[in-house]
Amino acid sequence: MSRIVNVAAAQLGPIQREDSRAIVVKRLIDLLRQAHSRNAELVVFPELALTTFFPRWFVDDITQADHWYETNMPSVATQPLFDEAKRLGVGFCLGYAELTADSQRFNTQILVERNGSVVAKYRKVHIPGHEHHEPDRPFQHAERYYFTPSNEGFGVWKAFGGRIGMMICNDRRWPETYRVMGLQGVEIILCGYNTPLHYVPDPSQDPLQGFHNALVMQSGAYQNGTFVVGVAKGGLEEGVDGLADSSIIAPSGELLAKTTTSDDEVITATCDLDWCNNYKNTLFDFDRYRRPEVYGRITQQRGSILD
Amino acid sequence: MSRIVNVAAAQLGPIQREDSRAIVVKRLIDLLRQAHSRNAELVVFPELALTTFFPRWFVDDITQADHWYETNMPSVATQPLFDEAKRLGVGFCLGYAELTADSQRFNTQILVERNGSVVAKYRKVHIPGHEHHEPDRPFQHAERYYFTPSNEGFGVWKAFGGRIGMMICNDRRWPETYRVMGLQGVEIILCGYNTPLHYVPDPSQDPLQGFHNALVMQSGAYQNGTFVVGVAKGGLEEGVDGLADSSIIAPSGELLAKTTTSDDEVITATCDLDWCNNYKNTLFDFDRYRRPEVYGRITQQRGSILD
Repeated sequence: MSRIVNVAAAQLGPIQREDSRAIVVKRLIDLLRQAHSRNAELVVFPELALTTFFPRWFVDDITQADHWYETNMPSVATQPLFDEAKRLGVGFCLGYAELTADSQRFNTQILVERNGSVVAKYRKVHIPGHEHHEPDRPFQHAERYYFTPSNEGFGVWKAFGGRIGMMICNDRRWPETYRVMGLQGVEIILCGYNTPLHYVPDPSQDPLQGFHNALVMQSGAYQNGTFVVGVAKGGLEEGVDGLADSSIIAPSGELLAKTTTSDDEVITATCDLDWCNNYKNTLFDFDRYRRPEVYGRITQQRGSILD
Repeated sequence: MSRIVNVAAAQLGPIQREDSRAIVVKRLIDLLRQAHSRNAELVVFPELALTTFFPRWFVDDITQADHWYETNMPSVATQPLFDEAKRLGVGFCLGYAELTADSQRFNTQILVERNGSVVAKYRKVHIPGHEHHEPDRPFQHAERYYFTPSNEGFGVWKAFGGRIGMMICNDRRWPETYRVMGLQGVEIILCGYNTPLHYVPDPSQDPLQGFHNALVMQSGAYQNGTFVVGVAKGGLEEGVDGLADSSIIAPSGELLAKTTTSDDEVITATCDLDWCNNYKNTLFDFDRYRRPEVYGRITQQRGSILD
């Protein structure tokens, strides 16, 4: 089996509130075709790729937001994407809001193999933002109202000839995210994100958004010897400017490809999964060099404890 | 109490095998004075700052290496450094090889307050390299022969008006290092290192040494909202070229100062410890956002487990 995977990051520009799923799915199919024409076999779409980033608005009755969520996947609206991907023999990773039969709400990403089968589902673990309406904000980031943090953790799945993991947006800022997957031998981590350029609680971070995005994904890649594919929904969406900077990162931490626009854009990279072993078998040979006996605080405590 | 700490990184150029401790301590005192003249109150010296990096040679009988280790600190040779630091009212952090009364060997760093008292001792946790003689290498990296990995872990000490942690060289490549200190509220992490530019097990990493050094320290700083001071012994030492690139890094992950030579050189930065709170109290509010319930593998397993 080949250890080369041709990967595409399919960045989306903004999706406005009034844009129907049909319109969005057309854009996704167009990006899929572009990626396929560049030989990609795995196409990664952003977080919440089917709608605008609706946690920027608060609604008192959460069922009023139900229309932003998917109750089935594939849905009627996304079936054409699944069909076209299968026809082209291209796999993909897609983020969307999930409403389960028992009324749980997750920020979800699925991995679809080249034969059209859904091989993995990941639900976001690290939910940023706030639980309650904060009317003084210029825009809400009420993800903690709209989504339950998943307790299923970070899995790694055999697919595309390698070991694939997933994370979503804020997950990428936490080194534990990469490490839990690294300890399962992950070789490519797929990550969609929506990142407003303005961080309301501390605007001093605003000019650093691009730097921080690269820093966490590049270090997570290097420290675990894995590729990372980070894919934005960027640009000016309902008045809120979002980071673009979609990237494909090597196990060396080096940037292999990066978008140059804030709009719909495809970038690709040829990922030789054996490159991971340069790190996993040497400097980051975990079995030889890690020291879990002194890492206890990482799992024994949630917050900081000051003596 | 002021929350401003003026920190210096006192980089060393090479120390050759024949250089006596008296000669080295003179260089350290000279750097200390330069740092004091620039208003520094805390001066950070490299790992194994008193001798050449002796793990590059193997000896069959380890007691033949005893002369590279310190059995007391201060020692006769280092007493002038302690005296001058106390006279100037400058604290410092110093790395050296420690041989204990019960014949244990550690790669050690101490923190000395402005009044001359040793307030903390840290012994290296992550020991890189190899245990046995590998005669085919152009040079040895037999740290695992010369040093026992410490089981004391990563402490954080109240000193210099803040919370200070320490790590040594290879420790800085492991995100667990920063996190264990971050969970104790660390505000400045002090790190000495000796990093050969040539990584024998995988030379593809050689041109990336500077990038990797910055990547791990900048991400560790950002992800834990802490300053990091990384200090090299660099330059051509006994035929082996060492990374310089000593750096002072902000809680934002930004580089505040970096050396430009591979020789003895002082850089300084004014560190406002309250800057840490911009991160610790918002995006990286651990108590609010961390998810230790899904981090179990980090402490439950050492190496990767492939299903």
